[in-house]
Amino acid sequence: MAFTLVDGRPSDGVSTSDRGLLYGDGVFRTLRIRAGRPLNWAIQYRLLCDDCAALALPPPAEAVLLGEIRQLGAADAIARIAVTRGGGQRGYGYADPVVPTRLVAVYPDVPVDTEAQREGVRVRRCALTLSEQRRLAGVKSLNRLENVLARAEWRDPGIREGLLLDGADRVIEATASNLFAVFGGRLVTPDLSRCGVRGAQRERILSLAAVAGVQGVVADLPFSKLMGADEAFLCNSVIGIWPVAACETRQWRRGPVTHALQRLIEQHDAG
Amino acid sequence: MAFTLVDGRPSDGVSTSDRGLLYGDGVFRTLRIRAGRPLNWAIQYRLLCDDCAALALPPPAEAVLLGEIRQLGAADAIARIAVTRGGGQRGYGYADPVVPTRLVAVYPDVPVDTEAQREGVRVRRCALTLSEQRRLAGVKSLNRLENVLARAEWRDPGIREGLLLDGADRVIEATASNLFAVFGGRLVTPDLSRCGVRGAQRERILSLAAVAGVQGVVADLPFSKLMGADEAFLCNSVIGIWPVAACETRQWRRGPVTHALQRLIEQHDAG
Repeated sequence: MAFTLVDGRPSDGVSTSDRGLLYGDGVFRTLRIRAGRPLNWAIQYRLLCDDCAALALPPPAEAVLLGEIRQLGAADAIARIAVTRGGGQRGYGYADPVVPTRLVAVYPDVPVDTEAQREGVRVRRCALTLSEQRRLAGVKSLNRLENVLARAEWRDPGIREGLLLDGADRVIEATASNLFAVFGGRLVTPDLSRCGVRGAQRERILSLAAVAGVQGVVADLPFSKLMGADEAFLCNSVIGIWPVAACETRQWRRGPVTHALQRLIEQHDAG
Repeated sequence: MAFTLVDGRPSDGVSTSDRGLLYGDGVFRTLRIRAGRPLNWAIQYRLLCDDCAALALPPPAEAVLLGEIRQLGAADAIARIAVTRGGGQRGYGYADPVVPTRLVAVYPDVPVDTEAQREGVRVRRCALTLSEQRRLAGVKSLNRLENVLARAEWRDPGIREGLLLDGADRVIEATASNLFAVFGGRLVTPDLSRCGVRGAQRERILSLAAVAGVQGVVADLPFSKLMGADEAFLCNSVIGIWPVAACETRQWRRGPVTHALQRLIEQHDAG
Protein backbone atom coordinates (compact mmCIF):
# COMPACT_ATOMS: atom_id res chain seq x y z
CA MET A 1 0.00 0.00 0.00
CA ALA A 2 1.28 3.39 -0.96
CA PHE A 3 1.15 6.53 1.10
CA THR A 4 -0.72 9.01 -1.05
CA LEU A 5 -1.50 12.70 -1.16
CA VAL A 6 -4.73 13.42 -3.00
CA ASP A 7 -4.77 17.11 -3.93
CA GLY A 8 -2.20 17.64 -1.23
CA ARG A 9 -3.98 15.86 1.61
CA PRO A 10 -3.07 12.40 2.92
CA SER A 11 -5.80 10.05 1.80
CA ASP A 12 -6.43 6.38 1.19
CA GLY A 13 -9.15 6.95 -1.35
CA VAL A 14 -10.44 8.85 -4.31
CA SER A 15 -14.04 9.65 -5.06
CA THR A 16 -16.03 6.91 -6.78
CA SER A 17 -17.03 9.59 -9.30
CA ASP A 18 -13.46 10.46 -10.24
CA ARG A 19 -13.00 10.13 -13.98
CA GLY A 20 -9.67 8.43 -13.43
CA LEU A 21 -11.66 5.51 -12.05
CA LEU A 22 -14.68 5.85 -14.35
CA TYR A 23 -12.82 6.03 -17.67
CA GLY A 24 -9.07 5.95 -17.03
CA ASP A 25 -9.31 9.65 -17.87
CA GLY A 26 -5.88 10.77 -16.71
CA VAL A 27 -2.14 10.29 -16.93
CA PHE A 28 0.68 9.17 -14.65
CA ARG A 29 4.44 8.94 -14.33
CA THR A 30 6.60 6.72 -12.14
CA LEU A 31 9.90 7.92 -10.76
CA ARG A 32 12.66 7.04 -8.38
CA ILE A 33 13.33 9.08 -5.25
CA ARG A 34 16.89 8.89 -3.97
CA ALA A 35 18.02 10.71 -0.84
CA GLY A 36 14.72 12.58 -1.01
CA ARG A 37 15.38 13.81 -4.54
CA PRO A 38 13.29 12.77 -7.59
CA LEU A 39 15.67 11.47 -10.26
CA ASN A 40 15.58 12.66 -13.87
CA TRP A 41 13.07 15.24 -12.71
CA ALA A 42 13.27 17.78 -15.53
CA ILE A 43 12.37 15.15 -18.12
CA GLN A 44 9.74 13.54 -15.88
CA TYR A 45 7.97 16.83 -15.37
CA ARG A 46 8.16 17.78 -19.03
CA LEU A 47 6.66 14.45 -20.11
CA LEU A 48 3.92 14.73 -17.49
CA CYS A 49 3.03 18.15 -18.92
CA ASP A 50 3.09 16.76 -22.47
CA ASP A 51 0.75 13.98 -21.39
CA CYS A 52 -1.60 16.43 -19.68
CA ALA A 53 -1.64 18.52 -22.87
CA ALA A 54 -2.59 15.46 -24.95
CA LEU A 55 -5.71 15.06 -22.79
CA ALA A 56 -6.36 18.81 -22.36
CA LEU A 57 -5.71 18.50 -18.63
CA PRO A 58 -4.23 21.44 -16.74
CA PRO A 59 -0.81 20.25 -15.53
CA PRO A 60 0.11 20.57 -11.86
CA ALA A 61 2.63 23.25 -11.04
CA GLU A 62 6.16 21.95 -10.72
CA ALA A 63 6.68 23.55 -7.31
CA VAL A 64 3.51 21.91 -5.99
CA LEU A 65 4.68 18.46 -7.06
CA LEU A 66 8.17 18.95 -5.66
CA GLY A 67 6.67 20.23 -2.41
CA GLU A 68 4.41 17.20 -2.14
CA ILE A 69 7.23 14.78 -2.86
CA ARG A 70 9.19 16.50 -0.07
CA GLN A 71 6.15 16.40 2.19
CA LEU A 72 5.90 12.63 1.73
CA GLY A 73 9.33 12.50 3.34
CA ALA A 74 10.69 9.37 1.69
CA ALA A 75 14.46 9.14 1.37
CA ASP A 76 14.59 6.25 -1.10
CA ALA A 77 11.34 5.25 -2.71
CA ILE A 78 9.35 4.85 -5.88
CA ALA A 79 6.91 7.67 -6.50
CA ARG A 80 3.90 7.81 -8.75
CA ILE A 81 2.33 11.05 -9.87
CA ALA A 82 -1.10 10.89 -11.47
CA VAL A 83 -3.41 13.58 -12.78
CA THR A 84 -7.03 12.75 -13.54
CA ARG A 85 -9.87 14.85 -14.90
CA GLY A 86 -11.45 14.89 -11.45
CA GLY A 87 -15.07 14.32 -10.57
CA GLY A 88 -18.04 14.91 -12.73
CA GLN A 89 -21.36 13.68 -13.87
CA ARG A 90 -21.79 10.37 -15.63
CA GLY A 91 -20.94 10.55 -19.32
CA TYR A 92 -17.87 11.04 -21.48
CA GLY A 93 -18.38 14.80 -21.89
CA TYR A 94 -16.82 17.09 -19.32
CA ALA A 95 -17.37 20.68 -18.31
CA ASP A 96 -14.81 23.46 -18.48
CA PRO A 97 -12.84 24.42 -16.57
CA VAL A 98 -11.48 20.98 -15.70
CA VAL A 99 -10.64 20.65 -12.00
CA PRO A 100 -8.17 17.79 -12.02
CA THR A 101 -7.36 15.40 -9.22
CA ARG A 102 -3.67 15.20 -8.35
CA LEU A 103 -2.27 12.05 -6.75
CA VAL A 104 1.27 11.82 -5.46
CA ALA A 105 2.09 8.45 -3.94
CA VAL A 106 5.23 6.86 -2.55
CA TYR A 107 5.82 3.15 -2.68
CA PRO A 108 8.57 1.18 -0.92
CA ASP A 109 11.94 1.41 -2.60
CA VAL A 110 12.83 -1.20 -5.21
CA PRO A 111 16.53 -2.03 -4.91
CA VAL A 112 18.56 -1.72 -8.08
CA ASP A 113 18.96 -5.23 -9.54
CA THR A 114 22.70 -5.14 -10.14
CA GLU A 115 22.76 -8.70 -11.45
CA ALA A 116 20.13 -7.92 -14.08
CA GLN A 117 22.03 -4.76 -14.98
CA ARG A 118 25.25 -6.76 -15.46
CA GLU A 119 24.10 -10.11 -16.84
CA GLY A 120 20.99 -8.96 -18.65
CA VAL A 121 17.54 -10.51 -18.66
CA ARG A 122 15.56 -12.99 -20.68
CA VAL A 123 12.55 -11.51 -22.47
CA ARG A 124 9.72 -12.94 -24.52
CA ARG A 125 7.70 -11.74 -27.43
CA CYS A 126 4.10 -11.06 -26.39
CA ALA A 127 1.20 -12.41 -28.43
CA LEU A 128 -0.88 -9.27 -27.86
CA THR A 129 -0.16 -6.63 -30.47
CA LEU A 130 -0.51 -2.96 -29.63
CA SER A 131 -3.29 -0.99 -31.23
CA GLU A 132 -2.50 2.25 -33.05
CA GLN A 133 -3.97 5.47 -31.76
CA ARG A 134 -2.01 8.56 -32.72
CA ARG A 135 -3.96 10.73 -30.29
CA LEU A 136 -2.64 8.69 -27.36
CA ALA A 137 0.67 7.38 -28.72
CA GLY A 138 3.53 8.21 -26.38
CA VAL A 139 1.17 9.28 -23.61
CA LYS A 140 1.37 7.44 -20.29
CA SER A 141 -2.38 7.52 -19.78
CA LEU A 142 -4.38 5.58 -17.21
CA ASN A 143 -5.70 3.38 -20.06
CA ARG A 144 -3.21 0.56 -19.62
CA LEU A 145 -5.21 -2.59 -20.26
CA GLU A 146 -2.98 -3.66 -23.13
CA ASN A 147 -0.02 -3.67 -20.76
CA VAL A 148 -2.00 -5.60 -18.15
CA LEU A 149 -3.14 -8.23 -20.67
CA ALA A 150 0.34 -8.57 -22.14
CA ARG A 151 1.98 -8.93 -18.71
CA ALA A 152 -0.51 -11.68 -17.88
CA GLU A 153 0.73 -13.81 -20.79
CA TRP A 154 3.55 -15.42 -18.78
CA ARG A 155 4.33 -16.44 -15.21
CA ASP A 156 7.83 -17.83 -15.52
CA PRO A 157 9.84 -15.60 -13.13
CA GLY A 158 12.90 -16.29 -15.28
CA ILE A 159 11.36 -14.10 -17.97
CA ARG A 160 11.63 -10.52 -16.80
CA GLU A 161 9.88 -8.65 -19.58
CA GLY A 162 7.73 -9.09 -22.66
CA LEU A 163 8.27 -7.28 -25.93
CA LEU A 164 5.24 -5.56 -27.42
CA LEU A 165 4.90 -5.37 -31.17
CA ASP A 166 2.41 -3.60 -33.37
CA GLY A 167 0.33 -5.31 -36.04
CA ALA A 168 3.11 -4.91 -38.60
CA ASP A 169 5.67 -6.88 -36.55
CA ARG A 170 7.51 -3.76 -35.42
CA VAL A 171 8.85 -3.84 -31.87
CA ILE A 172 7.49 -0.83 -29.97
CA GLU A 173 8.45 -1.31 -26.33
CA ALA A 174 8.14 -3.85 -23.53
CA THR A 175 5.21 -4.12 -21.11
CA ALA A 176 6.73 -1.69 -18.59
CA SER A 177 9.89 -0.42 -20.24
CA ASN A 178 11.25 1.05 -23.44
CA LEU A 179 13.65 -0.73 -25.76
CA PHE A 180 16.88 0.28 -27.46
CA ALA A 181 19.05 -1.64 -29.91
CA VAL A 182 22.55 -0.94 -31.17
CA PHE A 183 23.54 -1.42 -34.82
CA GLY A 184 27.11 -0.44 -35.55
CA GLY A 185 27.47 2.99 -34.01
CA ARG A 186 23.74 3.72 -34.07
CA LEU A 187 21.47 3.54 -31.05
CA VAL A 188 17.93 2.91 -32.27
CA THR A 189 14.71 3.13 -30.25
CA PRO A 190 11.29 2.52 -31.78
CA ASP A 191 9.18 5.33 -33.14
CA LEU A 192 6.26 5.89 -30.74
CA SER A 193 4.06 8.01 -32.96
CA ARG A 194 1.48 5.23 -33.48
CA CYS A 195 1.52 3.48 -30.08
CA GLY A 196 3.69 2.95 -27.04
CA VAL A 197 4.69 5.06 -24.05
CA ARG A 198 7.45 7.66 -24.04
CA GLY A 199 9.29 6.81 -20.86
CA ALA A 200 11.46 9.38 -19.09
CA GLN A 201 14.46 7.07 -19.07
CA ARG A 202 14.15 6.66 -22.86
CA GLU A 203 14.14 10.41 -23.32
CA ARG A 204 17.21 10.82 -21.15
CA ILE A 205 19.09 8.04 -22.94
CA LEU A 206 18.34 9.65 -26.30
CA SER A 207 19.77 12.91 -24.99
CA LEU A 208 22.87 11.15 -23.61
CA ALA A 209 23.58 9.02 -26.68
CA ALA A 210 26.02 11.49 -28.16
CA VAL A 211 27.98 11.54 -24.89
CA ALA A 212 28.28 7.76 -25.16
CA GLY A 213 29.73 8.18 -28.63
CA VAL A 214 26.72 6.92 -30.57
CA GLN A 215 24.07 8.49 -32.69
CA GLY A 216 20.61 8.23 -31.10
CA VAL A 217 17.92 7.50 -33.66
CA VAL A 218 14.14 7.08 -33.44
CA ALA A 219 13.05 4.66 -36.15
CA ASP A 220 10.83 1.72 -36.94
CA LEU A 221 12.33 -1.51 -35.64
CA PRO A 222 11.02 -4.72 -37.18
CA PHE A 223 11.34 -7.72 -34.87
CA SER A 224 13.56 -9.51 -37.38
CA LYS A 225 15.89 -6.52 -37.39
CA LEU A 226 16.09 -6.47 -33.60
CA MET A 227 17.23 -10.09 -33.70
CA GLY A 228 20.25 -8.90 -35.69
CA ALA A 229 21.21 -6.08 -33.29
CA ASP A 230 24.68 -5.92 -31.76
CA GLU A 231 23.19 -5.01 -28.39
CA ALA A 232 19.71 -4.58 -27.01
CA PHE A 233 18.49 -3.20 -23.71
CA LEU A 234 15.39 -2.23 -21.79
CA CYS A 235 15.04 0.89 -19.68
CA ASN A 236 12.70 2.62 -17.32
CA SER A 237 12.95 4.89 -14.33
CA VAL A 238 12.85 2.06 -11.79
CA ILE A 239 15.13 -0.58 -13.35
CA GLY A 240 17.58 1.79 -15.03
CA ILE A 241 19.03 -0.18 -17.96
CA TRP A 242 18.76 -3.94 -18.28
CA PRO A 243 20.65 -5.54 -21.16
CA VAL A 244 18.55 -8.05 -23.06
CA ALA A 245 20.38 -11.35 -22.63
CA ALA A 246 17.99 -13.56 -24.55
CA CYS A 247 14.86 -13.47 -26.66
CA GLU A 248 13.60 -16.64 -28.30
CA THR A 249 16.76 -18.35 -29.61
CA ARG A 250 18.86 -15.19 -29.81
CA GLN A 251 21.37 -14.45 -27.05
CA TRP A 252 23.36 -11.33 -26.27
CA ARG A 253 26.00 -10.22 -23.78
CA ARG A 254 26.03 -6.73 -22.34
CA GLY A 255 27.79 -4.63 -24.96
CA PRO A 256 29.96 -1.54 -24.69
CA VAL A 257 27.26 0.99 -25.64
CA THR A 258 24.84 -0.47 -23.09
CA HIS A 259 27.52 -0.42 -20.42
CA ALA A 260 28.54 3.16 -21.23
CA LEU A 261 24.93 4.32 -21.02
CA GLN A 262 24.46 2.56 -17.68
CA ARG A 263 27.42 4.49 -16.29
CA LEU A 264 26.18 7.75 -17.78
CA ILE A 265 22.72 7.53 -16.22
CA GLU A 266 24.30 6.57 -12.88
CA GLN A 267 26.44 9.68 -13.04
CA HIS A 268 23.47 11.74 -14.08
CA ASP A 269 21.43 10.37 -11.16
CA ALA A 270 24.31 11.05 -8.74
CA GLY A 271 23.98 14.56 -10.21
CA MET B 1 -22.80 12.57 -7.24
CA ALA B 2 -23.86 8.98 -7.26
CA PHE B 3 -24.75 6.87 -4.26
CA THR B 4 -22.41 3.92 -4.43
CA LEU B 5 -21.94 0.53 -2.82
CA VAL B 6 -18.32 -0.59 -2.88
CA ASP B 7 -18.22 -4.32 -2.25
CA GLY B 8 -21.66 -3.99 -0.75
CA ARG B 9 -20.96 -1.13 1.63
CA PRO B 10 -22.01 2.48 1.08
CA SER B 11 -18.88 4.45 0.29
CA ASP B 12 -17.77 7.65 -1.39
CA GLY B 13 -14.36 6.37 -2.29
CA VAL B 14 -12.21 3.57 -3.58
CA SER B 15 -8.66 2.84 -2.54
CA THR B 16 -5.97 4.87 -4.29
CA SER B 17 -4.30 1.52 -5.01
CA ASP B 18 -7.30 0.08 -6.83
CA ARG B 19 -6.28 -1.08 -10.27
CA GLY B 20 -9.43 0.43 -11.72
CA LEU B 21 -7.89 3.80 -10.92
CA LEU B 22 -4.27 2.86 -11.60
CA TYR B 23 -4.74 1.29 -15.03
CA GLY B 24 -8.42 1.30 -15.95
CA ASP B 25 -8.19 -2.41 -15.15
CA GLY B 26 -11.87 -3.28 -15.04
CA VAL B 27 -15.21 -3.20 -16.82
CA PHE B 28 -18.58 -1.52 -16.39
CA ARG B 29 -22.15 -1.48 -17.62
CA THR B 30 -24.79 1.23 -17.43
CA LEU B 31 -28.46 0.40 -17.06
CA ARG B 32 -31.84 1.88 -16.43
CA ILE B 33 -33.79 1.15 -13.28
CA ARG B 34 -37.54 1.54 -13.61
CA ALA B 35 -39.88 0.97 -10.69
CA GLY B 36 -36.94 -0.57 -8.88
CA ARG B 37 -36.31 -3.09 -11.64
CA PRO B 38 -33.16 -3.12 -13.82
CA LEU B 39 -34.24 -3.12 -17.47
CA ASN B 40 -32.90 -5.59 -20.02
CA TRP B 41 -31.21 -7.32 -17.12
CA ALA B 42 -30.53 -10.75 -18.61
CA ILE B 43 -28.52 -9.26 -21.46
CA GLN B 44 -26.81 -6.71 -19.19
CA TYR B 45 -25.63 -9.42 -16.84
CA ARG B 46 -24.49 -11.72 -19.64
CA LEU B 47 -22.44 -8.93 -21.24
CA LEU B 48 -20.92 -7.97 -17.89
CA CYS B 49 -19.84 -11.59 -17.46
CA ASP B 50 -18.44 -11.68 -21.01
CA ASP B 51 -16.46 -8.52 -20.29
CA CYS B 52 -15.13 -9.94 -17.02
CA ALA B 53 -14.06 -13.07 -18.89
CA ALA B 54 -12.16 -10.98 -21.45
CA LEU B 55 -10.07 -9.56 -18.60
CA ALA B 56 -9.93 -12.79 -16.56
CA LEU B 57 -11.91 -11.14 -13.77
CA PRO B 58 -14.22 -13.25 -11.61
CA PRO B 59 -17.73 -11.96 -12.35
CA PRO B 60 -19.99 -10.91 -9.47
CA ALA B 61 -22.84 -13.28 -8.70
CA GLU B 62 -26.11 -12.22 -10.28
CA ALA B 63 -28.00 -12.45 -6.99
CA VAL B 64 -25.45 -10.19 -5.29
CA LEU B 65 -25.86 -7.51 -7.94
CA LEU B 66 -29.64 -7.70 -7.89
CA GLY B 67 -29.59 -7.51 -4.11
CA GLU B 68 -27.38 -4.45 -4.18
CA ILE B 69 -29.52 -2.70 -6.78
CA ARG B 70 -32.51 -3.38 -4.50
CA GLN B 71 -30.54 -2.18 -1.48
CA LEU B 72 -29.86 1.14 -3.21
CA GLY B 73 -33.60 1.60 -3.19
CA ALA B 74 -34.01 3.73 -6.29
CA ALA B 75 -37.35 3.53 -8.08
CA ASP B 76 -36.29 5.24 -11.32
CA ALA B 77 -32.61 5.82 -11.83
CA ILE B 78 -29.55 5.13 -13.91
CA ALA B 79 -27.29 2.48 -12.43
CA ARG B 80 -23.67 1.74 -13.15
CA ILE B 81 -22.05 -1.56 -12.26
CA ALA B 82 -18.27 -1.75 -12.37
CA VAL B 83 -15.85 -4.55 -11.59
CA THR B 84 -12.16 -3.79 -11.17
CA ARG B 85 -9.19 -6.03 -10.46
CA GLY B 86 -9.03 -4.64 -6.92
CA GLY B 87 -5.99 -3.51 -5.02
CA GLY B 88 -2.48 -4.61 -5.51
CA GLN B 89 1.12 -3.63 -5.69
CA ARG B 90 2.44 -1.23 -8.27
CA GLY B 91 3.03 -2.88 -11.64
CA TYR B 92 0.98 -4.39 -14.43
CA GLY B 93 1.31 -7.97 -13.16
CA TYR B 94 -1.29 -9.23 -10.71
CA ALA B 95 -1.44 -12.10 -8.27
CA ASP B 96 -3.94 -14.92 -8.32
CA PRO B 97 -6.57 -15.24 -7.10
CA VAL B 98 -7.89 -11.86 -8.19
CA VAL B 99 -10.03 -10.21 -5.51
CA PRO B 100 -12.09 -7.77 -7.55
CA THR B 101 -13.70 -4.56 -6.38
CA ARG B 102 -17.42 -4.34 -7.12
CA LEU B 103 -19.07 -0.94 -7.49
CA VAL B 104 -22.81 -0.50 -7.85
CA ALA B 105 -23.87 3.12 -8.15
CA VAL B 106 -27.17 4.87 -8.77
CA TYR B 107 -27.38 8.21 -10.51
CA PRO B 108 -30.41 10.47 -10.82
CA ASP B 109 -32.92 9.34 -13.42
CA VAL B 110 -32.54 10.69 -16.96
CA PRO B 111 -36.01 11.27 -18.41
CA VAL B 112 -36.71 9.62 -21.74
CA ASP B 113 -36.28 12.26 -24.45
CA THR B 114 -39.49 11.66 -26.35
CA GLU B 115 -38.78 14.43 -28.83
CA ALA B 116 -35.41 12.94 -29.75
CA GLN B 117 -37.08 9.54 -30.04
CA ARG B 118 -39.71 10.92 -32.40
CA GLU B 119 -37.86 13.57 -34.43
CA GLY B 120 -34.40 12.09 -34.37
CA VAL B 121 -31.08 13.76 -33.63
CA ARG B 122 -28.31 15.43 -35.53
CA VAL B 123 -24.97 13.63 -35.36
CA ARG B 124 -21.46 14.39 -36.56
CA ARG B 125 -18.59 12.33 -37.79
CA CYS B 126 -15.72 12.38 -35.28
CA ALA B 127 -12.17 13.08 -36.42
CA LEU B 128 -10.73 10.57 -33.96
CA THR B 129 -10.59 7.09 -35.45
CA LEU B 130 -10.88 4.05 -33.20
CA SER B 131 -7.86 1.84 -32.75
CA GLU B 132 -8.16 -1.88 -33.36
CA GLN B 133 -7.55 -4.26 -30.48
CA ARG B 134 -9.23 -7.59 -30.86
CA ARG B 135 -8.52 -8.55 -27.24
CA LEU B 136 -10.69 -5.65 -26.05
CA ALA B 137 -13.12 -5.22 -28.95
CA GLY B 138 -16.71 -5.31 -27.74
CA VAL B 139 -15.66 -5.07 -24.09
CA LYS B 140 -16.96 -2.12 -22.07
CA SER B 141 -13.71 -1.71 -20.21
CA LEU B 142 -12.67 1.20 -18.01
CA ASN B 143 -10.20 2.26 -20.75
CA ARG B 144 -12.44 4.83 -22.41
CA LEU B 145 -10.11 7.64 -23.38
CA GLU B 146 -10.99 7.37 -27.05
CA ASN B 147 -14.62 8.04 -26.17
CA VAL B 148 -13.63 10.98 -23.96
CA LEU B 149 -11.42 12.52 -26.65
CA ALA B 150 -14.05 12.01 -29.34
CA ARG B 151 -16.82 13.52 -27.20
CA ALA B 152 -14.63 16.58 -26.61
CA GLU B 153 -14.53 17.31 -30.34
CA TRP B 154 -17.74 19.34 -30.32
CA ARG B 155 -19.72 21.58 -27.99
CA ASP B 156 -22.74 22.49 -30.10
CA PRO B 157 -25.66 21.18 -28.00
CA GLY B 158 -27.61 20.77 -31.23
CA ILE B 159 -25.36 17.84 -32.08
CA ARG B 160 -26.33 14.96 -29.85
CA GLU B 161 -23.81 12.32 -30.80
CA GLY B 162 -20.62 11.71 -32.77
CA LEU B 163 -20.02 8.76 -35.05
CA LEU B 164 -16.81 6.84 -34.49
CA LEU B 165 -15.11 5.26 -37.46
CA ASP B 166 -12.11 2.99 -37.71
CA GLY B 167 -9.04 3.70 -39.80
CA ALA B 168 -10.67 2.15 -42.87
CA ASP B 169 -13.66 4.54 -42.86
CA ARG B 170 -16.02 1.98 -41.42
CA VAL B 171 -18.60 3.29 -38.95
CA ILE B 172 -18.28 1.34 -35.70
CA GLU B 173 -20.52 3.09 -33.18
CA ALA B 174 -21.10 6.53 -31.65
CA THR B 175 -19.27 7.90 -28.60
CA ALA B 176 -21.83 6.52 -26.14
CA SER B 177 -24.21 4.48 -28.23
CA ASN B 178 -24.38 1.80 -30.90
CA LEU B 179 -25.57 2.36 -34.44
CA PHE B 180 -28.00 0.52 -36.71
CA ALA B 181 -28.91 1.20 -40.32
CA VAL B 182 -31.73 -0.21 -42.44
CA PHE B 183 -31.23 -1.23 -46.08
CA GLY B 184 -34.33 -2.69 -47.70
CA GLY B 185 -35.46 -5.29 -45.20
CA ARG B 186 -32.07 -5.69 -43.56
CA LEU B 187 -31.12 -4.19 -40.22
CA VAL B 188 -27.34 -3.81 -40.16
CA THR B 189 -25.16 -2.98 -37.16
CA PRO B 190 -21.38 -2.75 -37.40
CA ASP B 191 -19.13 -5.68 -36.67
CA LEU B 192 -17.40 -5.06 -33.32
CA SER B 193 -14.68 -7.68 -33.56
CA ARG B 194 -11.90 -5.11 -34.07
CA CYS B 195 -13.09 -2.21 -31.90
CA GLY B 196 -16.21 -0.73 -30.35
CA VAL B 197 -18.41 -1.62 -27.39
CA ARG B 198 -21.17 -4.22 -27.44
CA GLY B 199 -24.00 -2.38 -25.78
CA ALA B 200 -26.87 -4.25 -24.13
CA GLN B 201 -29.47 -2.32 -26.13
CA ARG B 202 -27.71 -3.37 -29.36
CA GLU B 203 -27.82 -7.01 -28.30
CA ARG B 204 -31.50 -6.80 -27.51
CA ILE B 205 -32.35 -5.07 -30.78
CA LEU B 206 -30.50 -7.77 -32.71
CA SER B 207 -32.56 -10.39 -30.90
CA LEU B 208 -35.82 -8.48 -31.58
CA ALA B 209 -35.15 -7.75 -35.26
CA ALA B 210 -37.03 -10.78 -36.49
CA VAL B 211 -40.07 -9.75 -34.45
CA ALA B 212 -39.96 -6.38 -36.22
CA GLY B 213 -40.01 -8.19 -39.54
CA VAL B 214 -36.42 -7.53 -40.52
CA GLN B 215 -33.29 -9.59 -40.71
CA GLY B 216 -30.67 -8.47 -38.15
CA VAL B 217 -27.17 -8.58 -39.57
CA VAL B 218 -23.74 -7.80 -38.13
CA ALA B 219 -21.51 -6.53 -40.92
CA ASP B 220 -18.94 -3.94 -41.88
CA LEU B 221 -20.57 -0.58 -42.57
CA PRO B 222 -18.52 1.91 -44.60
CA PHE B 223 -19.46 5.53 -43.91
CA SER B 224 -20.42 6.04 -47.55
CA LYS B 225 -22.79 3.08 -47.31
CA LEU B 226 -24.41 4.48 -44.16
CA MET B 227 -25.14 7.69 -46.07
CA GLY B 228 -27.27 5.59 -48.43
CA ALA B 229 -29.27 3.84 -45.69
CA ASP B 230 -33.08 3.99 -45.65
CA GLU B 231 -33.04 4.56 -41.89
CA ALA B 232 -30.38 4.97 -39.25
CA PHE B 233 -30.62 5.05 -35.49
CA LEU B 234 -28.55 5.12 -32.31
CA CYS B 235 -29.28 3.09 -29.21
CA ASN B 236 -28.14 2.57 -25.67
CA SER B 237 -29.70 1.59 -22.39
CA VAL B 238 -30.34 5.17 -21.28
CA ILE B 239 -31.65 6.82 -24.45
CA GLY B 240 -33.47 3.82 -25.90
CA ILE B 241 -33.54 4.40 -29.67
CA TRP B 242 -32.86 7.78 -31.28
CA PRO B 243 -33.41 8.01 -35.03
CA VAL B 244 -30.55 9.75 -36.81
CA ALA B 245 -32.14 12.83 -38.39
CA ALA B 246 -29.04 14.32 -39.95
CA CYS B 247 -25.36 13.65 -40.51
CA GLU B 248 -23.35 16.07 -42.61
CA THR B 249 -25.61 16.90 -45.56
CA ARG B 250 -27.73 13.74 -45.32
CA GLN B 251 -31.14 13.92 -43.66
CA TRP B 252 -33.54 11.20 -42.58
CA ARG B 253 -36.99 10.89 -41.06
CA ARG B 254 -37.84 8.24 -38.52
CA GLY B 255 -38.61 5.15 -40.58
CA PRO B 256 -40.95 2.23 -40.00
CA VAL B 257 -38.31 -0.24 -38.82
CA THR B 258 -36.92 2.26 -36.30
CA HIS B 259 -40.42 3.00 -35.04
CA ALA B 260 -41.33 -0.67 -34.77
CA LEU B 261 -38.18 -1.38 -32.79
CA GLN B 262 -38.86 1.55 -30.45
CA ARG B 263 -42.26 0.07 -29.66
CA LEU B 264 -40.80 -3.41 -29.21
CA ILE B 265 -38.21 -2.34 -26.67
CA GLU B 266 -40.83 -0.30 -24.80
CA GLN B 267 -43.00 -3.40 -24.56
CA HIS B 268 -40.02 -5.46 -23.55
CA ASP B 269 -39.15 -2.94 -20.83
CA ALA B 270 -42.73 -2.86 -19.59
CA GLY B 271 -42.26 -6.63 -19.50
